[in-house]
Amino acid sequence: MIEELKKSVFQANLDLVKHGLVIHTWGNASGRDKTTGLIVIKPSGISYKSMRPDDMVIINPEGKIVEGKNKPSTDAPTHLLLYRNYSSIGGIVHTHSTYATSWAQAGEDIPPLGTTHADHYYGEVPCTRKLNENEVNSEYEINTGKVIIERLGNIDPLAVPSVLVNCHGPFCWGLDAEEAVYNAVALEEIARIAFYTVVLGKKEPVDKFLLDKHFHRKHGKGAYYGQDKPK
Amino acid sequence: MIEELKKSVFQANLDLVKHGLVIHTWGNASGRDKTTGLIVIKPSGISYKSMRPDDMVIINPEGKIVEGKNKPSTDAPTHLLLYRNYSSIGGIVHTHSTYATSWAQAGEDIPPLGTTHADHYYGEVPCTRKLNENEVNSEYEINTGKVIIERLGNIDPLAVPSVLVNCHGPFCWGLDAEEAVYNAVALEEIARIAFYTVVLGKKEPVDKFLLDKHFHRKHGKGAYYGQDKPK
Amino acid sequence: MIEELKKSVFQANLDLVKHGLVIHTWGNASGRDKTTGLIVIKPSGISYKSMRPDDMVIINPEGKIVEGKNKPSTDAPTHLLLYRNYSSIGGIVHTHSTYATSWAQAGEDIPPLGTTHADHYYGEVPCTRKLNENEVNSEYEINTGKVIIERLGNIDPLAVPSVLVNCHGPFCWGLDAEEAVYNAVALEEIARIAFYTVVLGKKEPVDKFLLDKHFHRKHGKGAYYGQDKPK
Amino acid sequence: MIEELKKSVFQANLDLVKHGLVIHTWGNASGRDKTTGLIVIKPSGISYKSMRPDDMVIINPEGKIVEGKNKPSTDAPTHLLLYRNYSSIGGIVHTHSTYATSWAQAGEDIPPLGTTHADHYYGEVPCTRKLNENEVNSEYEINTGKVIIERLGNIDPLAVPSVLVNCHGPFCWGLDAEEAVYNAVALEEIARIAFYTVVLGKKEPVDKFLLDKHFHRKHGKGAYYGQDKPK
Repeated sequence: MIEELKKSVFQANLDLVKHGLVIHTWGNASGRDKTTGLIVIKPSGISYKSMRPDDMVIINPEGKIVEGKNKPSTDAPTHLLLYRNYSSIGGIVHTHSTYATSWAQAGEDIPPLGTTHADHYYGEVPCTRKLNENEVNSEYEINTGKVIIERLGNIDPLAVPSVLVNCHGPFCWGLDAEEAVYNAVALEEIARIAFYTVVLGKKEPVDKFLLDKHFHRKHGKGAYYGQDKPK
Repeated sequence: MIEELKKSVFQANLDLVKHGLVIHTWGNASGRDKTTGLIVIKPSGISYKSMRPDDMVIINPEGKIVEGKNKPSTDAPTHLLLYRNYSSIGGIVHTHSTYATSWAQAGEDIPPLGTTHADHYYGEVPCTRKLNENEVNSEYEINTGKVIIERLGNIDPLAVPSVLVNCHGPFCWGLDAEEAVYNAVALEEIARIAFYTVVLGKKEPVDKFLLDKHFHRKHGKGAYYGQDKPK
Repeated sequence: MIEELKKSVFQANLDLVKHGLVIHTWGNASGRDKTTGLIVIKPSGISYKSMRPDDMVIINPEGKIVEGKNKPSTDAPTHLLLYRNYSSIGGIVHTHSTYATSWAQAGEDIPPLGTTHADHYYGEVPCTRKLNENEVNSEYEINTGKVIIERLGNIDPLAVPSVLVNCHGPFCWGLDAEEAVYNAVALEEIARIAFYTVVLGKKEPVDKFLLDKHFHRKHGKGAYYGQDKPK
Repeated sequence: MIEELKKSVFQANLDLVKHGLVIHTWGNASGRDKTTGLIVIKPSGISYKSMRPDDMVIINPEGKIVEGKNKPSTDAPTHLLLYRNYSSIGGIVHTHSTYATSWAQAGEDIPPLGTTHADHYYGEVPCTRKLNENEVNSEYEINTGKVIIERLGNIDPLAVPSVLVNCHGPFCWGLDAEEAVYNAVALEEIARIAFYTVVLGKKEPVDKFLLDKHFHRKHGKGAYYGQDKPK
């Protein structure tokens, strides 16, 4: 079971590169094992070219290495905090993808400017506040997780499956690592279209009823997009 | 006959991905059988990677499934309304391609700023008005078709083979699905060049006589672009 | 001899696509045979995918078809006028490449903003005036050549091997078709960098002495870039 | 030993093309042999397609050709001055990569707008002053090296491994040619994200404590990013 998860987390890390969201070692993906609650995560600073499934690191929810010869990603404490806080999510990715990172560096939420956005995010893609000096100097990666959770507030993390960390970049999640990658790809394109739209002079979000329509067409009880699920 | 159409509509859907106009399942293509009037359309929410020609759905002009194990694209009612209203068109595609969607989100027509545009569109690429709350909440996809038709007014759909749906994205069409893809590719590049041109500070459309010259060089009785048609 | 030229002009047309300067049939390349003065040019409106070397059209300097089953590019009269006027050039390409076309649509010269530009163009890349109604309605393609020549004035066409046609796009040339493609690739990147530079707020051209230095480092008697030419 | 260096410098030159940082012959890479102090550098104006490892030129620190049938890159005097001045660097690359060159043409430092930047540069990526007429007309390539060194001042070249030459483009370096390429790739993406961020309206650099945190997380004694080094 955990061997399958190692393969899928490994694949998710490679997919970030394949989709053009990550260069060098600027990203990481992790997944949570539903049975044991163990986390599989990318090792720190290992080149994507030489990385193998067995390089993945298995840690417990407190961050102790359970299996693996490498140190986990330096962002592991951020991942762990999100997993502990949101029982619904099973995969997390972090990237420095170009357009999403540009919005993060600008310190701005990405407003829902069209139905592409509304199909995937029930409202703006939120940007956190900046961390203060204490939060940066001590337990930086944990505090990164804390401002994400603070910014989400009572938003359902599966209805808004990404947050921009101010002056940093996006964290995205989903039911598993594969879905987290899927959301990271969607976010980058949504951030890109939003950038061009803003340059063309439009900043006002779509009407609330259009946001509702598109989000609920794809998500929740009244959804009628896609095929009927088996069973 | 309809088997050929299934293959060509399947191919048109894949071509949207190949040309970079569609990621995930953010698009759809359909074609109309000239003899029977039946419509072949992409199934809803099926991944492009696993899709096969036999996954295409055949519906009659009223939207009833005639053949196929899947539900048709949620945008099928929009396609059907366009087919019913315009007897000349035989293929329709819908995408969220980056630059065309940015203009749609900005809620602006794409002005004809050069001969690239004039070669393909006899005038601006029109953008619809926004749908109101009633139109969104009831028969949304049909109303999407209605605002396209309302915006086109008495424009020949083959002289302006694309419309931007406000806050949404482009619908493109042609004599068949292949030509609709061709026009979607042209539209995206035209939208991109127009974006850069506007950023450089130019917004005024080309002279009417230049628009006439380029459009009629390629289209209609006086056309002298391309090779003589056989027969 | 002319068979070699047909192959190289064919290849030049394909290279425009390979380098991302041309989609659909939005471009053409030609070359001049040094011995006979005959011109080999792309046929009009033929898809790049199905095109073969034998589809190239051979015309004499007055535009009469000497060999070939197809009609030549509709832009052939523009090519011919440039060949007749400039004995030094042996190849011409026309594209609608994205950034160069954006500058053409904006109706602006591309100013020499850095050494990349100065390495290839001895001064701005000039943009023509607009054609007037008479010039568009009668002998349009010949008049396109005339405004290019008018705009170049007494500039050496090999020192400034591209002109932007207002509201249209670039024409580029060189000693042969291959060099014309080379210049079209350089122009597109120079146009792109210039676009970003202008958005960053800088519009003033480089100092004349830097322009001189870089251009003459690569071109003319004092050139010291590259390897010594054999013989 | 020097044969290995020739191969790695050859590969570094090809990698500049592979990563999209160089078209035509718009770039060069060099490396320094630790034992002998000899420099291996790209030959001038040789196409990347036909280039072989044996085309690399070996020069001594004063620029005299020690081995090789070709002339070295015209930028060799700039490389040599940097090697002589900074004993810590073992590889240098020069490119005209799109976004970094746009900042250079704008004559602006790239401000550290986020953690992507802070992970790689301990402060802004500096842009030199313009060269004056005398500096351009006499010993231009040496003077290019001099303004880079003047601009760096007492900055550690390995803490800020790139400088933009005003109206020209970036020079990047590292412990060897491979690391110089790595830094050139990072610079281009950082320049790109910075461009979009500035267009979104944000120009203020990140807080000093965040810059410190991210730079020192990856570099120096307290670094905890990546795996422990063997030995």
